[in-house]
Amino acid sequence: MSKIHKIAILGASGYTGAELVRLIASHPNMRIAALTADRKAGQEMGAVFPHLAHLDLPVLRRIEDVDFSGIDLAFCALPHGVTHGLVRNLPDHVKLVDLSADFRLRDGEAYRKWYGIEHSALDIQPSVAFGLPEHYRDQIRDARITANTGCYVATSLLALIPPVRDGVIDPDSIIIDAKSGVSGAGRGLKEAMLFAEVNEGFNAYGVAHHRHMGELDQELSKFAGRPVTPTFTPHLVPMNRGMMATIYVQGAAEEIHASLTRQYADEPFVHVQPLGQMPATRHVRGSNQCRIGVVADRRPGHAIVISVLDNLMKGASGQALQCANIMLGLDETTGLNMAPTFP
Amino acid sequence: MSKIHKIAILGASGYTGAELVRLIASHPNMRIAALTADRKAGQEMGAVFPHLAHLDLPVLRRIEDVDFSGIDLAFCALPHGVTHGLVRNLPDHVKLVDLSADFRLRDGEAYRKWYGIEHSALDIQPSVAFGLPEHYRDQIRDARITANTGCYVATSLLALIPPVRDGVIDPDSIIIDAKSGVSGAGRGLKEAMLFAEVNEGFNAYGVAHHRHMGELDQELSKFAGRPVTPTFTPHLVPMNRGMMATIYVQGAAEEIHASLTRQYADEPFVHVQPLGQMPATRHVRGSNQCRIGVVADRRPGHAIVISVLDNLMKGASGQALQCANIMLGLDETTGLNMAPTFP
Amino acid sequence: MSKIHKIAILGASGYTGAELVRLIASHPNMRIAALTADRKAGQEMGAVFPHLAHLDLPVLRRIEDVDFSGIDLAFCALPHGVTHGLVRNLPDHVKLVDLSADFRLRDGEAYRKWYGIEHSALDIQPSVAFGLPEHYRDQIRDARITANTGCYVATSLLALIPPVRDGVIDPDSIIIDAKSGVSGAGRGLKEAMLFAEVNEGFNAYGVAHHRHMGELDQELSKFAGRPVTPTFTPHLVPMNRGMMATIYVQGAAEEIHASLTRQYADEPFVHVQPLGQMPATRHVRGSNQCRIGVVADRRPGHAIVISVLDNLMKGASGQALQCANIMLGLDETTGLNMAPTFP
Amino acid sequence: MSKIHKIAILGASGYTGAELVRLIASHPNMRIAALTADRKAGQEMGAVFPHLAHLDLPVLRRIEDVDFSGIDLAFCALPHGVTHGLVRNLPDHVKLVDLSADFRLRDGEAYRKWYGIEHSALDIQPSVAFGLPEHYRDQIRDARITANTGCYVATSLLALIPPVRDGVIDPDSIIIDAKSGVSGAGRGLKEAMLFAEVNEGFNAYGVAHHRHMGELDQELSKFAGRPVTPTFTPHLVPMNRGMMATIYVQGAAEEIHASLTRQYADEPFVHVQPLGQMPATRHVRGSNQCRIGVVADRRPGHAIVISVLDNLMKGASGQALQCANIMLGLDETTGLNMAPTFP
Repeated sequence: MSKIHKIAILGASGYTGAELVRLIASHPNMRIAALTADRKAGQEMGAVFPHLAHLDLPVLRRIEDVDFSGIDLAFCALPHGVTHGLVRNLPDHVKLVDLSADFRLRDGEAYRKWYGIEHSALDIQPSVAFGLPEHYRDQIRDARITANTGCYVATSLLALIPPVRDGVIDPDSIIIDAKSGVSGAGRGLKEAMLFAEVNEGFNAYGVAHHRHMGELDQELSKFAGRPVTPTFTPHLVPMNRGMMATIYVQGAAEEIHASLTRQYADEPFVHVQPLGQMPATRHVRGSNQCRIGVVADRRPGHAIVISVLDNLMKGASGQALQCANIMLGLDETTGLNMAPTFP
Repeated sequence: MSKIHKIAILGASGYTGAELVRLIASHPNMRIAALTADRKAGQEMGAVFPHLAHLDLPVLRRIEDVDFSGIDLAFCALPHGVTHGLVRNLPDHVKLVDLSADFRLRDGEAYRKWYGIEHSALDIQPSVAFGLPEHYRDQIRDARITANTGCYVATSLLALIPPVRDGVIDPDSIIIDAKSGVSGAGRGLKEAMLFAEVNEGFNAYGVAHHRHMGELDQELSKFAGRPVTPTFTPHLVPMNRGMMATIYVQGAAEEIHASLTRQYADEPFVHVQPLGQMPATRHVRGSNQCRIGVVADRRPGHAIVISVLDNLMKGASGQALQCANIMLGLDETTGLNMAPTFP
Repeated sequence: MSKIHKIAILGASGYTGAELVRLIASHPNMRIAALTADRKAGQEMGAVFPHLAHLDLPVLRRIEDVDFSGIDLAFCALPHGVTHGLVRNLPDHVKLVDLSADFRLRDGEAYRKWYGIEHSALDIQPSVAFGLPEHYRDQIRDARITANTGCYVATSLLALIPPVRDGVIDPDSIIIDAKSGVSGAGRGLKEAMLFAEVNEGFNAYGVAHHRHMGELDQELSKFAGRPVTPTFTPHLVPMNRGMMATIYVQGAAEEIHASLTRQYADEPFVHVQPLGQMPATRHVRGSNQCRIGVVADRRPGHAIVISVLDNLMKGASGQALQCANIMLGLDETTGLNMAPTFP
Repeated sequence: MSKIHKIAILGASGYTGAELVRLIASHPNMRIAALTADRKAGQEMGAVFPHLAHLDLPVLRRIEDVDFSGIDLAFCALPHGVTHGLVRNLPDHVKLVDLSADFRLRDGEAYRKWYGIEHSALDIQPSVAFGLPEHYRDQIRDARITANTGCYVATSLLALIPPVRDGVIDPDSIIIDAKSGVSGAGRGLKEAMLFAEVNEGFNAYGVAHHRHMGELDQELSKFAGRPVTPTFTPHLVPMNRGMMATIYVQGAAEEIHASLTRQYADEPFVHVQPLGQMPATRHVRGSNQCRIGVVADRRPGHAIVISVLDNLMKGASGQALQCANIMLGLDETTGLNMAPTFP
């Protein structure tokens, strides 16, 4: 009989927290032992998220009221800037998958630039794994803390790391035109996220300067072997889930496609489509899959790469669970094999 | 090691067919052995439904090209009027869950009235189980053929059978104001189902005369012990999935609530909310659950009952799988325990 | 050369305020002379509503900073409970169309019951016109203050007043199942109104007890000549604009249809469809029209009446402008003749 | 008293035809004298488009049944490939605004390449005006035929012509990532346009090879003075109306912004936002406006330009009416001054 790992979800009142609960509820080797939400402490999860009301779940607590002694692994779905102050207070035996940006940036200066605050746990940073399993699987396996890659960055890096590393695209030519469903903005109250504001509309935001650039630069530069600062423009699509990056690069489509195909041939969650065939977000909705398509542009020497995933799954909670499976020595795909939901 | 049942899905190119594939793909005791779609015979399922392209599935065939000798159970997701002509051609050992309306009506005359054609297999009809497991579980267990209840009818009957049978509502007072997501209309090409026609709009259809009334009348009359013809008005909601019935009745809310609570106390998929608390379709999206709420109207002696489900799950393919599990002697909930998907 | 009336819009930072600006911007006999929004005072309207940025509009102010001496008419689009305290401070020469509920209820007790506060201007109430022009045109023409009918109530009353007054429906049998787009909830920050909460879902709210019942009761009772308390259930549709009331009554469809047809034969904004033909909200989107359909139910003696309008137009700002036109002696349809926007 | 021009709309059963009817219905100097739709000949417009049922309109006819003797101007909203065969049959006194692509391409070879058919009226082509009033106003004024610019091309060219002509961007660097609402695909029955297929999803289409490239190349090359072939990728957004082009170029943002600001300073329908401020499609919905924003990219020497419009208005029927106003000697903005509809 396989071991049941006890899981805590810190920050369970947001969308990524709820998605983790949904996933772990049918995971054969995990059991939710603690749920926290400071401002909703004392409430039932089913009151905060009625779609989970039928599950047998612990009541929401404040973090300081959690007994971590029996916890094997915690998912930290707290806002950016909170986890780095929290991590020292967790007992050493508790593994951590952090869904915030706090441990993604290796460089304290970069963290200050993009998040506007001082990082208080830079000493821990070097031991943290970058939570993109397809490229950091070994690190994740051995890490106590994994910094789950953000949704925009995962969508982009899965398409870009192989060809950048293989030198088949010019790193200085990268333009990422990204589009996201609304759930990525979280459950916080912002006028711009009201239904009547979003529905029947489309807009760019954070044009030319967006927080996720820090992670993009770090990883692309690492795999390119020199500084890379891609152009990145996020847009908001009137849908709940789904993310697409339309990426314009200089390079030969066939070589890019070959690099991606080699890289992901045996990956359970990343699928490279036949050359010239483009994926849509609806092809991955509700699943942990990423789909990537490559096509030659009509301008000679240019190619277009399109990468799609579900921002709450492979872009957040699904990938976090994938990392957790690795950290706990489980089959990486456990609890993540559902086919996409369509329509 | 448990047996793996071999499954055929007849009419796999529609939305309910795709949903069955999605569900069975992660069912531990079933394997898809045949998929049919007459007009798309020869195509890969992944070409017809790209979200299923990553699965290892048989190619689509014509029904006459299927070797049924190894098939244990077939789901029939064909249009109304086709199955009743087909059923005699299937070998006796093949169990059948029919998602069309062909075997739902006990009365040949009623079938002719609502569907405009003559039924060619009325001799078989008496042996067919009515596919609403919560009320016909024993019949389904012993049946070779189960006629899966339609989405509008399942939504309504789950809320109405207990109080009608218990005599706590006046059967002549029933008004069902129903609302459905668009996927219930199927994948056929109709101008009224184009995105630009549906989006940002809301309408009733089939007002005062709708095919599903035949099933409603049959079952409500049976449980009332006398003829019942409720008012029923379906509406189209600009969303993919989800169904709600807002039901107005004469009766005491407490008694109705008590009747429902008693009936469904141990049911895995039907949840009765605390008195006065109303469910929303988003609380069940993507799951096989039905949620029911009851509230007293301000008009004395009147009550409002609201029932919600996902029309492709508990309203179609999910319930069909629930019936199939029962017919095959499996745990009824196998492969159906996913929590709802929100947001 | 016709006179240009100077208009103030109090509470211009909400959706109904913005809709008034949109309409008046192309009204040949009105000019916007003042806009107020207490919390956004000092801002340009184009900063609060970028879609209006191309218009030449006064800057937003606090109400107390408005010079009302040159104002002919003010639209009051403030929250419920604010206008009744404000009205005494306006100079006598300023006509007022109030879009809040403050002056809709004749009875102070009813106001307290439904809005939970004491009304401070009950002495003024008797002189206020009920802002449903098709039934109170003469009152409105002579009034200094008009209380614009709410969206749910306008949708329902336009369909119900004629047959209730003509005695062709049983007032005790009325059940109003109402559905609204999201803009009716305003621009306030509520979790339930976030895109990700509303999209791909459908729910009822305020079941069995909703504020608008006060107005419904008052008007239906008046036209019935005795107390009437209909059943009323509002639902939220994932769309920006549009409202439908599906109304179940006891009565003969032909008589109801005849009553409505007679009443509205010459009305510019209310259209009764041929018997049996049902309207959809998309048929009136963006226009000041109301469409009404009637059909006989299959239950003898019962009928279904469906009424649709755009909740921001004929349900709010469009109707308010219609009232203002009447109060200022202009052609009632001025600035309101745009055809619906579809798709 | 001003003259009332008699208007024919050929191909009135599509979305652009319906939008023309909506606009002309409240145009003070035009009256609809004929409507054609071959397959719906004999039907009332209100049967085909119920939202127009309240208007007094001629019945739909076949083109050959129209008496053009009294017609001043015809809008041709027929499918690509039809108008060029039709134009010779129209009497000379009838002016024509063609919304199809038939007369947009100067080069017969290019037409054959992108549309796959031979052009039968190449002799007429040189006299046809390119229907982008902000850049071809004088041509349009004198033309008998104007070829209304397509939606993607109008969105892109309005942003690109001034800086390309002024030499402040490198024409070889242009990448247009375009996004469109669904109505641009028309009312034809295509599986990919069903609500359940589009809703909650996002996809690219026609990647690297799309018909509108022909027009883009022609106009950009003309204003650049040498061959230009931009990269162009269209995407489908789950909304009815709205179009955005996110354009990546090499050039100095300040110079691009200055070029655009100079060009459009006095234009009624094209608004250039302050440097760094980006427009959204909801800011122009339902109006004839185009809004353009410019921002410097973080990559030195690169800039991002975003252009938005309503694809059925400034992208099709609104612009066609603007052209018609010019051709008939009317004020260009007549009937087109409505503010955007939000929410």
